[in-house]
Amino acid sequence: MDQHASVVAVDLGGTTIKAARLDRQGGVEETLRLPTPVQQGPPAIIDAVTAAAGALTRVDTKAVGICAPGLVNSTTGIVHFAPNLGLRDVALARAVQEQLAVPVTLQHDVRAACLAELRLGHAAGIDEVLVVVLGTGVAAGIVTAGKIVHGAQGIAGEFGHIPVFADGEPCACGQRGCVEAYAAAGALVRRYREAGGTADGAADVVAQLGSHEAADRIWTEGMNALGRALVTSTVLLDHQLIVLAGGMTGAGNHLLEPVRRTLQGGLAWRSAPPVHISALGASAGLFGAALHALDTFEPAGSTEHWHRLAALPRIS
Amino acid sequence: MDQHASVVAVDLGGTTIKAARLDRQGGVEETLRLPTPVQQGPPAIIDAVTAAAGALTRVDTKAVGICAPGLVNSTTGIVHFAPNLGLRDVALARAVQEQLAVPVTLQHDVRAACLAELRLGHAAGIDEVLVVVLGTGVAAGIVTAGKIVHGAQGIAGEFGHIPVFADGEPCACGQRGCVEAYAAAGALVRRYREAGGTADGAADVVAQLGSHEAADRIWTEGMNALGRALVTSTVLLDHQLIVLAGGMTGAGNHLLEPVRRTLQGGLAWRSAPPVHISALGASAGLFGAALHALDTFEPAGSTEHWHRLAALPRIS
Repeated sequence: MDQHASVVAVDLGGTTIKAARLDRQGGVEETLRLPTPVQQGPPAIIDAVTAAAGALTRVDTKAVGICAPGLVNSTTGIVHFAPNLGLRDVALARAVQEQLAVPVTLQHDVRAACLAELRLGHAAGIDEVLVVVLGTGVAAGIVTAGKIVHGAQGIAGEFGHIPVFADGEPCACGQRGCVEAYAAAGALVRRYREAGGTADGAADVVAQLGSHEAADRIWTEGMNALGRALVTSTVLLDHQLIVLAGGMTGAGNHLLEPVRRTLQGGLAWRSAPPVHISALGASAGLFGAALHALDTFEPAGSTEHWHRLAALPRIS
Repeated sequence: MDQHASVVAVDLGGTTIKAARLDRQGGVEETLRLPTPVQQGPPAIIDAVTAAAGALTRVDTKAVGICAPGLVNSTTGIVHFAPNLGLRDVALARAVQEQLAVPVTLQHDVRAACLAELRLGHAAGIDEVLVVVLGTGVAAGIVTAGKIVHGAQGIAGEFGHIPVFADGEPCACGQRGCVEAYAAAGALVRRYREAGGTADGAADVVAQLGSHEAADRIWTEGMNALGRALVTSTVLLDHQLIVLAGGMTGAGNHLLEPVRRTLQGGLAWRSAPPVHISALGASAGLFGAALHALDTFEPAGSTEHWHRLAALPRIS
């Protein structure tokens, strides 16, 4: 990009739309948040994404990069199925591009976060990586030989639906014993409430550790499930590094210590890869959406300076 | 390769060394088998591999391709650790090459079989594939975006050590509940004997299906474990095709039917990829070792005619 170019990123989530304009160094110039109008249907969501992107777009903006959850085709820019957003077969990138006179890309939110980790985070320069995003649900970006794995239908990385306990807890997906039914923030809160606790988010369960037996038990089961799924992924793919990202990483060592212990304990015959918490926080998706847009529309190397940022700002 | 060129392949197994010379069309010209002298130590194994390759090498032989189990570095040609062979840090490719005046490559046996499936088998032209080799143990070759996954330490594909049952059967690897502890031929035979049955191989267990309750139970548990591990691999990697290879595939529909049922039953939210039995039989490793040698030493495209073989011969 030239000296004064910028890129706009939009992270379309189930409750919030986050957006930012980044300068040519990856520095944050301006940010914006608005609620996702899920109840008002697909046209309202498209309008809200367009409004967020449009409000941040300047004459020097070279591209807009959107990321979204669900079954997303990053080549065509179509959201095929995103149940949390109520979207099915929506050509989101094209719809936004027709309103703004700027090229627009679309990427899956977890793969966008994974791209940001690969360029800017702990995974920079590493070819064999697993990035697990722990939020309301659980999903992962898988990197082999330096490339993000998409899979046959573009739905690789459904780490949350690894079955870890035979005949275990029912999962929203229809299976039983999925890691997401134990280790996701949504599952932890639901299970803690069912056990008589009070929690609005995973942080409320963490706050009760050591003082409420049900919190200890449910958290331990969640971390055990997560650690077992990491064992599985490691024996299959031989990761060099595992990065944990998403809102639940605020739990810090309450998350890292039991997961590292379960991972190493489940790998009797080989060493465990190191496990780190992402340095990008909740901004990984936004940075990744911006990188994806620039990779698509700007010459290679345009983001070469981004990794020199000593400390990445957290957006939001 | 020119009209009269040939390639020699050697499959170094824990009990048998199989070798073949293939012509420029991938046709089998000559084969050879000898016992692996595991008890006599590494020098005797190197000598046996050299003798097998040497006996088949002709003036028109362009390269020798070896495949072996364990932790194998296909770039350096070193077997780092192969417990079944008693090998540790043996520069096998170089040792054989010094004796024969022909270039020699080394590849992991399962990744060699996977390469053969990709070029010559059901997986030809498919980019997202899992090839599970079911023998005394269980391991897999993983293909994403058309490339075989090696992993950080070259030990990706340890499918046999996916933990499928928490606190399940002890596995030789030191973990518990590994798929290999239920679904490998070795485990099936051991478990059937412990239940009072008589079996020398998995085929003897299959022969008792429908007439001996213990055989039915142990086989069903094995297929259930295998199906569950395939669920896990599919949610992580979104395979387009799963190929089952190795000695146990002789079980045919006794293998395919329960595995397909468990796989689809464990994927409530998506369709299951098709599961097929390899058409290459026990020869997949040999064909893959030959392809790897030609890929390394001969110009690209030298094996372009191989896939035209209508029916591949089975070696051995």
